[in-house]
Amino acid sequence: MSQRISDEAVAGEPRSEHSSRRYGNVLPHNHKVEAPPKKTLFEDIKQSVKEVFFSDNPAKEFKDKTIGRKFVLGLESVFPILNWAKGYNFKSFRGDFISGLTIASLCIPQDIAYAKLANLDPQYGLYTSFVAPLVYAFMGSSRDIAIGPVAVVSLLLGTMLSNEIADIHSHDYLRLAFTATFFAGITQIGLGVLRLGFLIDFLSHAAIVGFMAGAAVTIALQQLKGLLGIVNFTKKTDIVSVMRSVWGTVHHGWNWETIVIGVSFLTYLLVTKYIAKKRKKLFWVAAIAPMISVILSTLFVYITRADKKGVAIVKHIKKGVNPASASEIFFSGKYLGAGARIGLIAGLIALTEAVAIGRTFAAMKDYPLDGNKEMVALGTMNIVGSLTSCYVATGSFSRTAVNYMAGCKTAVSNIVMSIVVLLTLLVITPLFKYTPNAVLAAIIITAVIGLIDIEAVILLWKIDKFDFVACLGAFFGVIFKSVEIGLLIAVIISFAKILLQVTRPRTIVLGKLQGTSVYRNIHQYPKASQIPGMLIIRVDSAIYFSNSNYIKERILRWVTDEDVQRTGSEMPRIQYLIIEMSPVTDIDTSGIHALVELFKSLQKRDIQLLLANPGPIVMEKLSASNLTHLIGEHKIFLSVADAVATFGA
Amino acid sequence: MSQRISDEAVAGEPRSEHSSRRYGNVLPHNHKVEAPPKKTLFEDIKQSVKEVFFSDNPAKEFKDKTIGRKFVLGLESVFPILNWAKGYNFKSFRGDFISGLTIASLCIPQDIAYAKLANLDPQYGLYTSFVAPLVYAFMGSSRDIAIGPVAVVSLLLGTMLSNEIADIHSHDYLRLAFTATFFAGITQIGLGVLRLGFLIDFLSHAAIVGFMAGAAVTIALQQLKGLLGIVNFTKKTDIVSVMRSVWGTVHHGWNWETIVIGVSFLTYLLVTKYIAKKRKKLFWVAAIAPMISVILSTLFVYITRADKKGVAIVKHIKKGVNPASASEIFFSGKYLGAGARIGLIAGLIALTEAVAIGRTFAAMKDYPLDGNKEMVALGTMNIVGSLTSCYVATGSFSRTAVNYMAGCKTAVSNIVMSIVVLLTLLVITPLFKYTPNAVLAAIIITAVIGLIDIEAVILLWKIDKFDFVACLGAFFGVIFKSVEIGLLIAVIISFAKILLQVTRPRTIVLGKLQGTSVYRNIHQYPKASQIPGMLIIRVDSAIYFSNSNYIKERILRWVTDEDVQRTGSEMPRIQYLIIEMSPVTDIDTSGIHALVELFKSLQKRDIQLLLANPGPIVMEKLSASNLTHLIGEHKIFLSVADAVATFGA
Repeated sequence: MSQRISDEAVAGEPRSEHSSRRYGNVLPHNHKVEAPPKKTLFEDIKQSVKEVFFSDNPAKEFKDKTIGRKFVLGLESVFPILNWAKGYNFKSFRGDFISGLTIASLCIPQDIAYAKLANLDPQYGLYTSFVAPLVYAFMGSSRDIAIGPVAVVSLLLGTMLSNEIADIHSHDYLRLAFTATFFAGITQIGLGVLRLGFLIDFLSHAAIVGFMAGAAVTIALQQLKGLLGIVNFTKKTDIVSVMRSVWGTVHHGWNWETIVIGVSFLTYLLVTKYIAKKRKKLFWVAAIAPMISVILSTLFVYITRADKKGVAIVKHIKKGVNPASASEIFFSGKYLGAGARIGLIAGLIALTEAVAIGRTFAAMKDYPLDGNKEMVALGTMNIVGSLTSCYVATGSFSRTAVNYMAGCKTAVSNIVMSIVVLLTLLVITPLFKYTPNAVLAAIIITAVIGLIDIEAVILLWKIDKFDFVACLGAFFGVIFKSVEIGLLIAVIISFAKILLQVTRPRTIVLGKLQGTSVYRNIHQYPKASQIPGMLIIRVDSAIYFSNSNYIKERILRWVTDEDVQRTGSEMPRIQYLIIEMSPVTDIDTSGIHALVELFKSLQKRDIQLLLANPGPIVMEKLSASNLTHLIGEHKIFLSVADAVATFGA
Repeated sequence: MSQRISDEAVAGEPRSEHSSRRYGNVLPHNHKVEAPPKKTLFEDIKQSVKEVFFSDNPAKEFKDKTIGRKFVLGLESVFPILNWAKGYNFKSFRGDFISGLTIASLCIPQDIAYAKLANLDPQYGLYTSFVAPLVYAFMGSSRDIAIGPVAVVSLLLGTMLSNEIADIHSHDYLRLAFTATFFAGITQIGLGVLRLGFLIDFLSHAAIVGFMAGAAVTIALQQLKGLLGIVNFTKKTDIVSVMRSVWGTVHHGWNWETIVIGVSFLTYLLVTKYIAKKRKKLFWVAAIAPMISVILSTLFVYITRADKKGVAIVKHIKKGVNPASASEIFFSGKYLGAGARIGLIAGLIALTEAVAIGRTFAAMKDYPLDGNKEMVALGTMNIVGSLTSCYVATGSFSRTAVNYMAGCKTAVSNIVMSIVVLLTLLVITPLFKYTPNAVLAAIIITAVIGLIDIEAVILLWKIDKFDFVACLGAFFGVIFKSVEIGLLIAVIISFAKILLQVTRPRTIVLGKLQGTSVYRNIHQYPKASQIPGMLIIRVDSAIYFSNSNYIKERILRWVTDEDVQRTGSEMPRIQYLIIEMSPVTDIDTSGIHALVELFKSLQKRDIQLLLANPGPIVMEKLSASNLTHLIGEHKIFLSVADAVATFGA
């Protein structure tokens, strides 16, 4: 075996050498490097547009169907429920029902709490958990996601809205919230319809981890107000000012009754969370804990009238179902711009969160999830929401996990949840009057702790230091400055990384693995040996204007350095430079120019340039630019092995 | 031969199969996929920083030298002249002297003309051609570039400055020009010192071609004012308003004497240019033509006193050498910001032009050119210039070409030129009093025509349609709106291309070339045949957050589509997915997550995932993230051939 391969490796004795010179390679059936059939400009553009915007080929199932069928398919693609509802059965309903109840019991306290993060009255949280999930259930394609208000988006809205309108109790504040929600929806639909979904991929995983953790810490700190019963608390969200107003009020202004209630329930909640984490089976213990805490604490306060002793309580939640709010949205006036801007940001963050969740669980159950379709669903959901007194809703990490573990099968669990929320709104909201804010604070803290993903950070550190830095940047940006700044930092760092990727592609020197015809990175495989008189370099990227010059100069430097080394070790000087082009997906005019310049420089040093395995597009462009003739067609090979066999000493 | 190779290809009969199962590959001396020696964080960061900012390893020659030597080397690296002056001899001087005189005769008329483009008095053009080349000669490393004012930058300055200060004759206008020049220098030095030179590569060749052509057309149109002797002419630069003010004045306001002079000399200049183009040897005919035209036309006007008949003339050029202008620069006040902004843009454009020229000619003579060092030189040049009444200078395409053809050897030709300019300033400037603007216009037109590179545009069309569009975008942006807009469009399009590159990498299906162990793109090589029960996909890019999700979904789609096809043609269904990872230079945490999700989805369809030839960094990260265990180390192979031989039916 070894014998046979190594034989092939040394192919290139006179006989085959001769033939090879003729055929441009030494393979039997002489396979030539082939240029693909020329494409017309239209095909060319069409294809690239398709790959960019319709890479998932959404029109596929519509192909050669009758008009009627097409219409049905169209409806189904807008309302997936029409599709899966057919196969829906009692068994799946049982799963959905139980999980629906579970997430309802979890979301009701959270809704009330999160609404406060957005500086809105508690009922708006519940409103959002009633309408949004319904809409999503009909249009969304994720089977596990639990829709509703979430901590981070609520905080983001809260800060950005109050930056615009300081008086958070004014009616304009509420109107701006609806406006922002409306434009958040528009943003999401827009991205989906324009098939620009991929844009959210520009927020790197690392950045999101950092941002989320930062937001979690910020939110948790904010809760010290409720937990310690501090009355006048800073509006700022950065850790410094929060800490100042916490310790500033330590002697007067902390309320011990509040602290007792808050801390005890916080402990209870954390313990249940811990149990659930240790024993996956007991997840429901943590799931219903918030509801239990609310009930117990409310009763406690009601009986002891602790509110008289300065324990802050919810006081009032409006009873009844969502009022219409279409007329509240600012479609003109000075707040229109602000609303749009805030909506854009909040919408993007909400989208990122929802899509991330959707993908994770879709992968776990391996069902397809059309990102762009998701965005349309989420967008519609928020637009409808903005017309029915909801604020920005999205998928919640914690509740989705619970939903999944409770054995949800379809989006019906969301419907169940929203019905429960509806009943709550209609019947029992008044009972929340005596619910102490301290408990809500405790619930928020327990919820957001889940957003701090230490393992992920450790993994970032282990895998990619750059990602780790991006993560830290976002994190500190959030806790020391503000959520927006953290976000900005995250985006900037993400882009910096992309710029590096496109300006500094890798070029490596290949060597031959002894006794094979395989050529590998000599730094990865020290055993790999270089060919006398030849230098083999692989370029690992498309050659574009952004890197063409670097690649050219890097290659020339490889040549120079190698020459120096070899003159040291009586190896013959380099006569042939082989560029392995397999990974070069594309080359643009700047790239062509760089190759020409490289070719000229090599000529000056009388080194011959050989190309190995240029891809179809590259081949096409090489011949279009006549470079094939400049270099010489017999110097373009199917593989490095061929080139070596042909010209190798 | 064929025999031998195909044997290797079918390796994987029981015997080797057995061994392979054990060793994870079937190669003799069983080469394993090797992870490189682990690097410490410091090494890691150090290396990447080095590759990004010091990829040319500037410290190399400083290594293990004495302090004294290091100092000398340092000086030499800042002032390359100290280095090459040693070897300078009479022979090279002859070449430099002749070429110096030639470009001087070319630059003097151009300077006077270009100064008008920047709305400055003619002498400032000459000032710039005196100081700037001197400074460059000492610090620059290009041997061919001819330094001085250039048409495009002059126009750019003219427009941007007059946008700030409408009254172009006010003293503040002049001061702002110096301020902009100063900051242009700062920008250029900054980029050089911070080693951010690569940033200018983000302006793609295509965009530059379009921008230059657009600027040329704009400039040429502007010259109709001088050529037709139109008195009140629009300040705008877009083709529409220019054409309007040309035809608006057709009946009154065109001056026939001017037209006669202008058109006749324009014809003369174009003819000489044509001759020079046909006969490279006669380049000097075109080179001295402008000077001749100036002399003749000046005499003509002086004798006929045509200026009395409304032929516009230069009127007055201040005699004497550059006055100091340090005190003129706005280091504070309302114009500081504007000056900095304009300087930044003008500086970048100037830089792009100079570096492009430098590279082209460096490649033709194959001498190294340190981009960052060039920037420092150009920057210093412009800063010194701004202190001595010069405006932004850079390398001129036309004059550099002449310089090269006249046989220049070193930057001494620039020194010669600047001395000639000095003499002109001291002695003969008054003689230019009667030079008709029409001739200057003719000179400008002839000069800028050279900036319209039809061949390049055709090549763009042939090679890369996207580049072609970018080119057109920049071109029309300039002629229909303004230079800045054109520039903006150029940059945006360039970036769009980069985003595409990083979001939509190529994934291709590989097939086996009959009778070999070579695997190639089945779309490029229709002869290549797929392996029953296996799908082989190559990913041609680093897997980063910006594309990880796309890659994952694209691969899954390949699998689905292939499965559909194969069930059609009684081929066994896919059991193994081989990912050829050679081109995957790097993978970040998002990428790892994508791989994990891919792995899970494949498990669900019970397809096994095999990896072929992951690179060093990827290997490192795969093991750091424990993915090697998840996938199974025996499923990671040195090459596709191995994987096929091992698991292939």
